[in-house]
Order: sequence, then C-alpha cells, then structure tokens
Amino acid sequence: MALEIQQFTSSDPDFWSRVDALATSDAAERPEVREAAESICRDVRTRGDAAVLEYTRRFDRREDVADIDALRLSPDAMRAAYESLDSAARSTLTQTHDRLVRFAEQQVATSWRITDELGCELGEQVTPLDRAGLYVPGGKASYPSSLLMNAVPARVAGVGELIMVAPTPDGAINPWVLAAAHLIGVDHAFCIGGAQAVAAMAYGTETIPAVDKIVGPGNAYVTAAKRYVFGTVGIDKLAGPSEILVICDGQTEVDWTVLDLFSQAEHDEDAQAVLVCPDADYLAAVRDRADQLASAQPREAIIRQSLAARGALVQVDDLSQAAAVANRLAPEHLELSVADPDALLSQIRHAGAVFMGRHTPEAFGDYCAGPNHVLPTGRGARFSSPLGVHDFQKRTSLIKAGPEAAAALAPLAGHFADVEGLTAHAQSARLRGGA
Amino acid sequence: MALEIQQFTSSDPDFWSRVDALATSDAAERPEVREAAESICRDVRTRGDAAVLEYTRRFDRREDVADIDALRLSPDAMRAAYESLDSAARSTLTQTHDRLVRFAEQQVATSWRITDELGCELGEQVTPLDRAGLYVPGGKASYPSSLLMNAVPARVAGVGELIMVAPTPDGAINPWVLAAAHLIGVDHAFCIGGAQAVAAMAYGTETIPAVDKIVGPGNAYVTAAKRYVFGTVGIDKLAGPSEILVICDGQTEVDWTVLDLFSQAEHDEDAQAVLVCPDADYLAAVRDRADQLASAQPREAIIRQSLAARGALVQVDDLSQAAAVANRLAPEHLELSVADPDALLSQIRHAGAVFMGRHTPEAFGDYCAGPNHVLPTGRGARFSSPLGVHDFQKRTSLIKAGPEAAAALAPLAGHFADVEGLTAHAQSARLRGGA
Repeated sequence: MALEIQQFTSSDPDFWSRVDALATSDAAERPEVREAAESICRDVRTRGDAAVLEYTRRFDRREDVADIDALRLSPDAMRAAYESLDSAARSTLTQTHDRLVRFAEQQVATSWRITDELGCELGEQVTPLDRAGLYVPGGKASYPSSLLMNAVPARVAGVGELIMVAPTPDGAINPWVLAAAHLIGVDHAFCIGGAQAVAAMAYGTETIPAVDKIVGPGNAYVTAAKRYVFGTVGIDKLAGPSEILVICDGQTEVDWTVLDLFSQAEHDEDAQAVLVCPDADYLAAVRDRADQLASAQPREAIIRQSLAARGALVQVDDLSQAAAVANRLAPEHLELSVADPDALLSQIRHAGAVFMGRHTPEAFGDYCAGPNHVLPTGRGARFSSPLGVHDFQKRTSLIKAGPEAAAALAPLAGHFADVEGLTAHAQSARLRGGA
Repeated sequence: MALEIQQFTSSDPDFWSRVDALATSDAAERPEVREAAESICRDVRTRGDAAVLEYTRRFDRREDVADIDALRLSPDAMRAAYESLDSAARSTLTQTHDRLVRFAEQQVATSWRITDELGCELGEQVTPLDRAGLYVPGGKASYPSSLLMNAVPARVAGVGELIMVAPTPDGAINPWVLAAAHLIGVDHAFCIGGAQAVAAMAYGTETIPAVDKIVGPGNAYVTAAKRYVFGTVGIDKLAGPSEILVICDGQTEVDWTVLDLFSQAEHDEDAQAVLVCPDADYLAAVRDRADQLASAQPREAIIRQSLAARGALVQVDDLSQAAAVANRLAPEHLELSVADPDALLSQIRHAGAVFMGRHTPEAFGDYCAGPNHVLPTGRGARFSSPLGVHDFQKRTSLIKAGPEAAAALAPLAGHFADVEGLTAHAQSARLRGGA
C-alpha cells in the first residue's frame, strides 16, 4: 500500500495555516474524562485507602487484592528484580542512570546572597522538596526509562523521599521498572494508578504518604487528575501526545530520516512525526522509502495510522524557513539533520530538546544521552522546559536589613504603601526607619 | 472591644492538629465559580472580541464602551500618567523599579554546554518567552507594585512583548498603575479583566494578542480561568489569600510585631497573620497592644475580621519548634524577628520569602527590597518559588553526537529500546552506530 501522509509546500497559499493546523493546541480534557477523574479525586480524598482499593480492584482488574497493603511493592521485590537481570541489562541500566545523573548535576541551583549599597543583604535560599511522587504508567507504556528520567533529577536535587506508583493491570508489572526503582532507591512503591493514584499522593491516605509534587506521564484521566490537584501539590506538566520535527537539508541517509520519523510514530496513533526540508526530491525519496520500511516494522499499523493522522512532509524555501516552522510549532523533539546544526540552532527559539547533526537521533535522547526525555508537548516549549533538577528545588527569597539599611528603605516602602492606601504597611515600615 | 484571635500552646494535646488547621490547603475553586469562569473562557475562545466586549460592558459596568478599541490604553495615556506624577512619586517608582531590576539580574540563567568523555556535546539553551500577559487586578486591589513585580522579571528575562490587562470597573483606573506601565514599557494594554481577559490572552482575539504565559494575581474567577487555560499557555501560580508567619523571640518592640501582623491582616478578611513565640508574656502583650492599635487603623474592621477568622497566637517550647511550625505551614511570608536570624534560617525548609531580623518587616519585601512579592501561598512554598526571571525563561536540551560518540551511544540506546519493545527506536539508534 502507498504511504498515507499529508504533504504541502511553502508555495501553497495556505501554508502557514497548514503549519498551525499541525499543532495540538487544545490542552483541555474531554468533559466526561475530567468529571470522572475529579469524582475519583474527591472520593479518594474523603475515603482514603478504601477508595483507592476499590478503584484499583475495578480498573486494574485486581479482584485478587484484599487490602491496600497487598498493593505495596516491597524493597525486596525491587532488589530481586534488579539482581535477576543479566549483566548486560544491568550495565545498560546503570550506564544510562549514571549519564542522567551527570547531566542533572549540571542543573543544581545553589543559594546565593549579596549585600547591596545600603548594607541590605538579599538572596535566595535553594532547598529540595521533602517528598516527590513518581507516576509510572502501566501496561504497554510502562517504560523503565521514564522512571529513571523522573527520579534522577529528584534524587540529584536531594528530595527527601520518593514515592512511586505504577498500576499493575491484571497484576502484571515490568521487571525492568522494578529493577530501575531499586537502582533509584525509591522509598515507597505502590501498585496503583489512574486518577486514584494521583489523588492518593496529593492528599495522602492512611497508607500512602502525601507528597509535595507529582511528576510522570499518564493517560487522560491521570492528566485530568493532575490538573485538579494542582495547587494542593505541584505537578510537572500536562503531558500530551509525543512529537518530533525533523529539519533535514536533504543530505542525510534516507533510511536514517525514515527511522527517526518512525521512532516517534511507533509510540501511538496520536504521536506526530513531521519532516521539514527544502528538497522536493528528498521528500519524495523519504515518502517512498517509508512505505517500504514500514512494512517491515512490528508496529507497522501504529506507524501508518500515526503518519496518516498527524504526520506531514513539509517543503520549505530554505533552512531559515524551516526554523520558522519549528518556532511556530515549538516541537517536543527537534532534529537538526543538517551539515551545520550550530548555525541553525541560533535561529531556534522554541523546542523541548534539539538533536544536533545527522548522527544524533532522538532515540539517544529518549534513553542515554543524559538530558531528560520528559519534555513539553503541544507547543508547551514556548513557555516551559524539560523536567530537571529545578523541578525538585525551590527558592526562598531572603531579605536582611540592619538598622541602617532599614532607615534607608523605610521611607521608600512607606511612600509606596501610602499610595496603595495600606496604612499598616506604611507604619510597619516607618517604625524601622526611626520615624 | 477585646481582640478576637485564637491562641494555643504546644502543651495542648491537639497542638499539631491546630497548626495544620491554620493552613488553607484546598486549592480547588468553588464549582459555580469554576463553571462560570470556564464558560466565559470557551465563549471568548469562540467569539473573540465580541465576547470580551460584552463581558466587560456587563461585569465592569462599562456600557459607555462601544467597541474593543475603546478598551485599548494608549502609550500616550501611560506616558501622561507618568509625567503627571510629582518628583517624589516618580522617584519612589523608579527607585523601586531599579532595585527590582538589580535583584532580578542575579536570577538570569545562561546557556551552557559541556563535552563528555565520549566527545558528545550536551547542554541547555536558555531563551526568553516571546510574549507574556500581565494581569493587574482592578478596583481596590489595583496595586502598581504588583505590576512592577510581575513585569520586571519578564523584562529582565528579555521577553519580546508584554501585554497588560487591567479591569476598569466604572471606568476607574489607578494612575500609578498607568505610570508604572509606562516605566516598564508595556507593549499593549487593555482595560479588561476577569476570566474574559485571561481567555483573551490565552487564545488571542482579533485585537488582543495571544501570549505564551499569563502572570499576576486576580479574584477567584481569574484563578479558575488560569487553571482552565493552563497547558495552552503557562501560568505563574494559583494565588490564594496572603499569609504572614512571624517567629519572635519575645525581644522585638511589641508595636513592631503588632504592625507587622496588621500589615498582613489589612489586606482582606481572608488574609492570615500568625505569631509564633516561646514567651507567654510577650504573646499577652501583643494581644493587648493589638487591640489598642487596631482601633486607630483606617482598615480596623478588615484587620479585626481577618485576625478573628484566620489569625493565631501560638506559644511554642523554643525557636526550633517555631521553625517546625513554619515548615509545616510553608508560609508565604516568614519573619524571623529574633536576635540571630541566620541560625534560625538554617532550620527553615519551606517559605516564600524570609524577612531576617527585627529591622526587616514584610512591608520592605512588598515594595522595595528587591525580591519579588509574588510568592507561593497556601503551603505552595513546599514545591514552588517566588516569581522570578526563571518564570520567563525556558530551557531547551541540546545533544550533539558526532560519529564517534554516536557509535558509543548507539548500542546503549538500542538495548534499552529493545527492552521497551520499540523497534524503530532501536533501529534509528543503531543506524548511527555503523551497525
């Protein structure tokens, strides 16, 4: 069968509308999903463990589970999973872990303090969160790499306790997830998922500790629950379908580009793979070759559906216009598959992660390069950042005025407070001014 | 009349429950507020300017306004407001502005890149947002200081365009807000507010530009609208009632402590002022003196209502226990009104801003000290930070592997992808490994 994927070019009169149409800008959940998720959150908040148990038995088909304690994952189980890996597997896990740690260590913010010309000390104290909750999806999307990506920055930030939740539909759990949890040193782990797990970590139950922030991807119910509890706890971001935009100058091996597009498209039917290139012949070659190679892919059906529904081959005038397309879409993953990626990078304003040069496929970033694979989707790179140590640290402003600095600041604060009609503010300030 | 405020002590058996009860942990909006706000958001998204105009005419009693252009604030009006200030006023505004700028400049993050032992380049590119929306409340809470606090970090971050919205109920606007807008150099300003203004900036209308992030406090409708549009745009935080917690060793002038508590309580009936002290006599003295001084306050009624509803005098064993109370409540504002504030600071894990020593009242931080006065409320300091330059910058991860680094990373990524059953990922990685 022929490859189904839309193609358009900068000479089309509706070029920019078609570019914009590629974005999934609607962040709001479907109303029925949201109502269900919020109802579960309220119920878990009220009834605690009993509600969590009921939802887990029902949604994860865990009628075998008699009480909440049976849903706790023991440290022994996690250690056993780690120790049962062969040495090659253990090496892949630890090498990846260590590369993530070294990258994250570059992101650690430190406290600072300065003394200004009035003698007033000003600064910020940086501290880690007490407790973070890690959501690991269950079923086919239960990825050990996601656990590492979420947990490593928390550990490097110095978070006191890590709570992991992972649904186990029909009782199944990925042994690599358990092994990764052991490597990370997760403090508490529970076989629960969905909105009920998010609510349990946000509000706490008799058994499950309340956390300060919840991170990790999940399905639409998880995302709706995260939006609902946001404010009671911090959340990382509202994860949408994954995306790649490949800018290619037409000189990269065709197979490399095709497989890079597939590596996004194979995630699920909603994933998006877009190729932007000034070379019409190259686009045609990619199209043909993609059709051949797709037939050999185990996930062929998903790849074809994803490319048909959301993929695109976009012909541009030149690489500068390709950069403009990227900035418009602010893609989660951006490959600069060109001869001089640094030159092109200088034109990129919005992207989650940039993969520079023909030898840097997105797959490196998904696993072992070092930077986080939890990235803003759905144009979120316009205003947000990859998950990192900064998500698990917070700042406290510091102000320390002695009598002299206070005497200088008092009239300024007093005057401003007068203007705003806040008398007690003004008096409080002026009392320190000796007035 | 006697001062009405709850008082309790560490010897009470329910001490920690009473501490916890001081927190306003419920971040969810009332359902009817949320439904109204979301309905307005959807309407503005669909009908654009026409909807914004209708809601503004109705909610702000602006039947005088015929079209959306009449709601645009001209640069001339802002300049005229600035120029009409007397020199003392202008000096207060510019001195405050300059102090905020200097503090914010300390927060600027910069791009970085390292080369690892494989020869792989890794780093982060830091870029500003293209466009930020500043929400300035109207009516009695229309504070020029809030505009400065929200706008300065955006400017220092290098945000391309600043859009300001401020409702003008009955057509009234604070001239200092206009003057501050001129000083900041706001690019577009509109006399609109409420959920309709949030939606207009999130989705854009024919007249009002779509922004990438919306910051600034507002009422419950504004907060609900911000939660709704979160994801389509970034938001700063969901602002709750303002709070102060004063830890005092009992040696600070009683009037100073009383006025510091009042400076919080005078904001509104929901504001919270808590004094934590190991000295029973001092607490009694504060209580008596507060009753006397309240009677002389223009905002006496609000102060008394706030202290009665949400205030507290808390007697603790010692300053370490006071720090434990503070960490439990994670207050927005924390005064360490003690002889050695640095020693006590080392025990503080969670607070929005810390005011160190007897000569540093919160009022300095509300205006001119330098740090931002937009701070996490409702225990949000457990996981979030004061508004700052980092809210207007975002990071893009960078990965650049040449042929040699790619050859080293390819088997690692390939193995991990095999484990996760993602064949195209594995092939995409291995193609770069020469395999």
